[in-house]
Amino acid sequence: MSDDPADLRLTLETLRALGPLDTTAMVAATAHLDALTKPPGSLGRLESLAVQLAGITGEPRPTFQRRAIVVAAADHGVVDQGVSAYPPDVTSQMVTNFLVGGAAISVLARTVGASVIVVDAGVATAIPTAEGAAKARLIAAPIRAGTSDMSVGPAMSRGEALRAIALGLDVADGVVHDGVDLLGVGEMGIGNTTAASAVTAAMTGLPAERVTGRGTGIDDASYRHKIDIVTRAIERNRPGPADPIGVLATVGGFEVGVLVGLMLGAAASRVPVVLDGFITGAAALIAAGLAPGIEGRFVAAHRSVEPGHAVVLERLGLRPLLELDLRLGEATGAALAMSLVDAAVAVRDGMATFDAAGVSGPALDAKRVEEVR
Amino acid sequence: MSDDPADLRLTLETLRALGPLDTTAMVAATAHLDALTKPPGSLGRLESLAVQLAGITGEPRPTFQRRAIVVAAADHGVVDQGVSAYPPDVTSQMVTNFLVGGAAISVLARTVGASVIVVDAGVATAIPTAEGAAKARLIAAPIRAGTSDMSVGPAMSRGEALRAIALGLDVADGVVHDGVDLLGVGEMGIGNTTAASAVTAAMTGLPAERVTGRGTGIDDASYRHKIDIVTRAIERNRPGPADPIGVLATVGGFEVGVLVGLMLGAAASRVPVVLDGFITGAAALIAAGLAPGIEGRFVAAHRSVEPGHAVVLERLGLRPLLELDLRLGEATGAALAMSLVDAAVAVRDGMATFDAAGVSGPALDAKRVEEVR
Repeated sequence: MSDDPADLRLTLETLRALGPLDTTAMVAATAHLDALTKPPGSLGRLESLAVQLAGITGEPRPTFQRRAIVVAAADHGVVDQGVSAYPPDVTSQMVTNFLVGGAAISVLARTVGASVIVVDAGVATAIPTAEGAAKARLIAAPIRAGTSDMSVGPAMSRGEALRAIALGLDVADGVVHDGVDLLGVGEMGIGNTTAASAVTAAMTGLPAERVTGRGTGIDDASYRHKIDIVTRAIERNRPGPADPIGVLATVGGFEVGVLVGLMLGAAASRVPVVLDGFITGAAALIAAGLAPGIEGRFVAAHRSVEPGHAVVLERLGLRPLLELDLRLGEATGAALAMSLVDAAVAVRDGMATFDAAGVSGPALDAKRVEEVR
Repeated sequence: MSDDPADLRLTLETLRALGPLDTTAMVAATAHLDALTKPPGSLGRLESLAVQLAGITGEPRPTFQRRAIVVAAADHGVVDQGVSAYPPDVTSQMVTNFLVGGAAISVLARTVGASVIVVDAGVATAIPTAEGAAKARLIAAPIRAGTSDMSVGPAMSRGEALRAIALGLDVADGVVHDGVDLLGVGEMGIGNTTAASAVTAAMTGLPAERVTGRGTGIDDASYRHKIDIVTRAIERNRPGPADPIGVLATVGGFEVGVLVGLMLGAAASRVPVVLDGFITGAAALIAAGLAPGIEGRFVAAHRSVEPGHAVVLERLGLRPLLELDLRLGEATGAALAMSLVDAAVAVRDGMATFDAAGVSGPALDAKRVEEVR
């Protein structure tokens, strides 16, 4: 496990060299889709998804045989301020639940044939042992047993922030090496919607009340308090978008850092990254701060009920595939979106062409091909 | 095959006797969901979908082992007015494409394990033969070889409208008898967005321009012409919401009538009906006109780009699961939504409870159970 910032520099250079999405693959994908027995574009976002996946991978018709979902877990010192409805040891208990396959992401990952990898990036309490065969792989590499309370000082040191990103880069390298061709990312961490709100406020300059929600479910008084805490964290630490690593260090989380590394690493290997909800979105803002343009390599799975998530998606210019009022995290939305990836690939590869089916239809519309160039 | 209006009367009586959704099953479903290792309600619409399915079926945890997708196909005399980008023989060509498994719905139905049944309710041209094993079942029971042009007179007689509904009731009876426990409905018919716009205008009283879109893709001039044709059909026939059968007869279509019958028949058997796009939505307006309250037994799969579809969904009080800018029909959206039904059932039945997993969490929240009563 390396925590050398050189890994990060190298990845950012690779991403710069990669440049924008592969338009040749996208044009070929569009031409193929337009030859299928349906009005051009009539499968809407399934078609644009297929085209985007071509652009990310550089292949006109990529298939995704080996998908993984990485759930980064860590605790947050800011829970001392009473920002969550749940006690902090739920983080470690839920890690165990991931490992035994009882969590929502365990079930949803199974439905799309994705393996689950849990990264302990800094869980504060001991992870309870459980009987039975492990249903997920655990990478235990905690940076520290939870961040410091960001409302009284920085959540972590700059060195710790870089180590968290490096951990994510390492995990991305590992899964890409194992042949993973589609990566879903999510998280678990009691208190991490508070961190995500602070990261979003820092990266966008918006006030706390615009980007703070009720997380797992808190009452009005706790909600107002949560906004105050986010405001205090910003005032105390003064993070800003010019220094994304500084934002991560002062008001982020260890799992947020891992997510940033995962996104950078997978994107640099041309592996599409399916984002989950608000916390992964906040991590994506940091990733895009470090590697502008990387957001084109992300698939936004869903828009959660957290108000900050809509802000994040708008900033990234990403339109989510699903709006199911999810607010669970764990990459549950990312897993659900993978079934739409499957659908997009299935129609792309399974439908007849107008020619083969003997169906009267329009010829390839040169204007649409032009649009995608 | 019966075209006795007594079948319709009986079905409407059954639906009245059935009354609203089963609240006992819904409360039990909610209690179960709240015991799972996630904050109550945090899986959003997956949870409300699981609760709705309990209410429709009357079982707290229904499973859907045998799902069917019925695609009703028919032609429209109004195509004489040049309202579609495609020639009318595409309807029969696409029926063949359904039968050989080359259409989008063929592929998407396969991904959710649904069989495809095509009902020829009134296709105007001969259905081309094709080699190879049939991938879908064809029920050939045309009312007539396409409707009459609604812009110069009624699309069909009142007797034909009743026969189309009776055909749908018969098909619903058949699939329910075969054990189908989840029904997706869709359609194929060149020109049928024009009919759906007229039906929606008639059922809602809204002007044609509010409920008319570009269908499979027509230019500005053709679009204005299409609005004129819908307006003319309404002015000529004067259909109104007090007489839903009259709306079907004057400005509907044979496949629309079959869809109405399918919805009524499946709902009367407590089988959830997954609606597709604008045309099935227009049929649902007629069904709800005949059987007020039936809309609670419908799952709205998606919102299409057709402006009339949003109007339909609002009138029915249904929020769609997906917004993917689809405009294909064929039940493609319904098939995609079935994967969300699968996800809802999977999390409901596959997740650990707080107790079993040893995760700290809130006790069953009595207030939430109260809300659903």
